[in-house]
Amino acid sequence: MLGNFSYHNATKLYFGDDSLQYLNEELPKYGKTVQLIYGGGSVKRNGIYDAVVEILKANGKTVVEDAGVMPNPTVEKLREGVRIARENHVDLLLAMGGGSCCDYAKAVSVSVHCDDDPWEKYYVRFEEPDCEIVPVACILTMAGTGSEMNAGAVITNHEQKLKIGHVFGEEVMPKFSILNPKFTFSLPKRQMVAGIYDIFNHICEQYFSGEDDNTSDYLAEALMRSVVHSSLIAVENPEDYEARSNIMWSATWALNTLISRGKSTDWMVHMLGQAVGAVTDATHGMTLAAVSLPYYRTIMPYGEKKFARFATEVWRVNPEGKSDRELAEAGLEALENWMKQIGVAMNITELGASEDVIEDIADATIILDGGYKVLTRDEVVRILRESL
Amino acid sequence: MLGNFSYHNATKLYFGDDSLQYLNEELPKYGKTVQLIYGGGSVKRNGIYDAVVEILKANGKTVVEDAGVMPNPTVEKLREGVRIARENHVDLLLAMGGGSCCDYAKAVSVSVHCDDDPWEKYYVRFEEPDCEIVPVACILTMAGTGSEMNAGAVITNHEQKLKIGHVFGEEVMPKFSILNPKFTFSLPKRQMVAGIYDIFNHICEQYFSGEDDNTSDYLAEALMRSVVHSSLIAVENPEDYEARSNIMWSATWALNTLISRGKSTDWMVHMLGQAVGAVTDATHGMTLAAVSLPYYRTIMPYGEKKFARFATEVWRVNPEGKSDRELAEAGLEALENWMKQIGVAMNITELGASEDVIEDIADATIILDGGYKVLTRDEVVRILRESL
Repeated sequence: MLGNFSYHNATKLYFGDDSLQYLNEELPKYGKTVQLIYGGGSVKRNGIYDAVVEILKANGKTVVEDAGVMPNPTVEKLREGVRIARENHVDLLLAMGGGSCCDYAKAVSVSVHCDDDPWEKYYVRFEEPDCEIVPVACILTMAGTGSEMNAGAVITNHEQKLKIGHVFGEEVMPKFSILNPKFTFSLPKRQMVAGIYDIFNHICEQYFSGEDDNTSDYLAEALMRSVVHSSLIAVENPEDYEARSNIMWSATWALNTLISRGKSTDWMVHMLGQAVGAVTDATHGMTLAAVSLPYYRTIMPYGEKKFARFATEVWRVNPEGKSDRELAEAGLEALENWMKQIGVAMNITELGASEDVIEDIADATIILDGGYKVLTRDEVVRILRESL
Repeated sequence: MLGNFSYHNATKLYFGDDSLQYLNEELPKYGKTVQLIYGGGSVKRNGIYDAVVEILKANGKTVVEDAGVMPNPTVEKLREGVRIARENHVDLLLAMGGGSCCDYAKAVSVSVHCDDDPWEKYYVRFEEPDCEIVPVACILTMAGTGSEMNAGAVITNHEQKLKIGHVFGEEVMPKFSILNPKFTFSLPKRQMVAGIYDIFNHICEQYFSGEDDNTSDYLAEALMRSVVHSSLIAVENPEDYEARSNIMWSATWALNTLISRGKSTDWMVHMLGQAVGAVTDATHGMTLAAVSLPYYRTIMPYGEKKFARFATEVWRVNPEGKSDRELAEAGLEALENWMKQIGVAMNITELGASEDVIEDIADATIILDGGYKVLTRDEVVRILRESL
C-alpha cells in the first residue's frame, strides 16, 4: 500500500432474500416525492415493481414514474430524467434495476439543480457537481456493475458515438441499496453471464497494474476466485441462491473503491469495450469479454510477473518448472477456458461489429496510462481486429 | 451468503505516510474542545504528540489531556475519562495510540451523557446507548485491533477478574481515523508481533464457523495470506514500509464487519485469551496466541472441511493424496510454524499463568456457541492446561 489515499463509503447495504422490507426503515428519512426509475417491463412481470410501489404508498410517498431506462442510458434519456425531477421537485431518486438504472439515477442526481447541460458539464468538461445533489437509492435486480455502492455513472451519446463514465465523489454514492439475490433469478441467462464477466473484469482492471505487494491485490484474487467458483454453479442452475448471493456480494466489493486502494489501476478493457458499446449498443459485459484476451495478450509481456501471479493465485496453475512467461500464458489460457465455459461473447463480430467500424471504435477509444503498457493507436486497432 | 444482513461503515480513513495532515480537513467539522487520549510517553518520545497538538492548536482547538490509558483499559480509567469529558464539555474524543486508546475513547463516548455506571450498563447488562454519543476519531500508532473502523470497546475489571468487549452499533464507530504506517515503526518488536497475531486471529475467529460457500471466507483467506506474507518481512525489517502498510490495512479490514457478513462467527479464542488477560494482564495478542493451538486442535474434528480448506487456501498445503483430516492437521502445523517464526507467545506460562490460576481463568471464560464445537467447562479447563 505505497500510496497515500482515503477510503470513505457510507452507502448502507441491506442484503438477503428478506432485504426489501428495510425500505420501510429508510423511506422516512427522505421527503415525500420519490422518482421511481426503472427500465422495461421485467420489474412489472416479476412482481418487484408492485412490491416496491406498495411499500412506497404505505410510507405515504408520492410516486413519480420514470420508466424506459435503456441498457446503455443515453444523454437524451438523462435530460428527460432531469426534467421529470425538476417538474416534480423530487426528494429521492429510487432506481430499481441493474447498473444502468443506478448509473442513470446518479447522473440525474447531480444535474437536477444544475443549469448546465449534464453531458457538457460532466462528460465533456468533466467538472464536479457544484449544486445540490438529490439523494439516490438502489434496489438491485442484476449483479454486475457495482453501481449500488459507488459514485460512477456511464452515459452514452449515440450521436457522437461516445460512451463515457464519470466517477463522482463520495457524496454521489447511493444512500442505501437493497440487494436481494432472488431478484436476479429471473434475469435471462445471457444477461447474468454478461454481469458475471463485468464483475470479473472490474477486478482485473484494478489488479493488472502496479508492481508492489499490496493487500488490495490479495482481496482482488479472493473476489475473482469466489466469482469463478459461483459462476460455474450459477450457469448450471441460475436459481442456486448460494451462488447468486456470492456473485451479487462480490459484484459490490469488486467496484466500491476497496480493491483499488493504494495502487494504480488499468481500465483499458473498459475503454475498448465502451467504445465497442457506443458503436454497436451491445451488452456492456459482453463488449468487455470480446476484447479482453487480445488486450491482455498484448500487455502481458510488460506485466509478466503479475500475469504469472494471476495464474498461480487465481487459477492455481502449478508453477513447478514453468517460467514467468509460461505461467502468464497458462493463466490467460485458464481465463479463456472459463469464459467459454460460462458462455460470454468471444469476439466483437457476434456483437455486430465488422472490419468497417474498426476505425470508428478506435476513434471512440480513450487511451489511459495506468496499465502495464500504454497503447498506441495502432495497437488499439490491432487489438480490435484481433477481437473480430 | 445465506443470511440476511446489513453493512454500513461510515468511518472515513486517511492512509499513508502523509495522512496526518488530513486532520486539518476534519477538525473544522467538530466543536472547540478536544479530549486528547493517549497512553504512556511513547507518543511524546516519537514526536507524534507534538505534531498532533500543533495541528489542534492551529485549528483553534482547546486541548484537554487524558493520558495514561493502559494496554487493557480499566473500568476505573473509563470512569476517569468520563469525568474529564463531562467537566470540560468536550466535543471530540481524539484517541492517539493503538486499539486500547480507540476502544477506551468509544467506551467514554457512550458514557459521557449517560447517568448509569458504564460498567454496569454496557458490560454487565449489555444495554445499548440511549444518550448523546460524543464523536470519536483515532490516530493509529499500532496495527492490530481494527478498533479504528469498528464499534467495539473492550474494558477490563481487575476486581472482578473480567475483560469484556461490547460491540456497539455503527453510530459508535470513529468518524475518521488516520493510519500512518510510519507511526508504527517505533513500536517494540514484541508489540508489533502481538498486533500481527491479533489481526490473524480476528480473521480466524470469523473464518472458522459456518458450512456454506461464502465470499466472506475468500476475503478472509486473502487477508490471512497478505498478513502472513508481510509479517515475515516485518519481523526481519520492522521499517519495511510496504510490509507495515499492508499489515496496517489488513488489520482494519480484518475487523470492520466486512468478513463476517452473511455468516456465523466463532470468537472463542478471544474469550479464552481475554480471560487469560483479565488474570495475567498480559498483552492481548499474546494471550490469543498462547491458547490458539490447543483450542483449534480441540475443535478441528468438528470443522474438518474448513480446516482442510484453511490448509490448502491459506498455507497452500498440497492436497494430493491427503485426507481432509491430514490436510487439517497440516494446516495447523503450518500455523504453528509461522507463529514460531514471527515469535509470539506459545503458552500461557510465559505470560505469567500457572496451574493454580487455571480455575480462575476458566471462571472468567465466556462460552460462545458460534464455532464448530460448543465447549464444555471441562474442555475449557483442558485447553487452558494444554496452553500452560
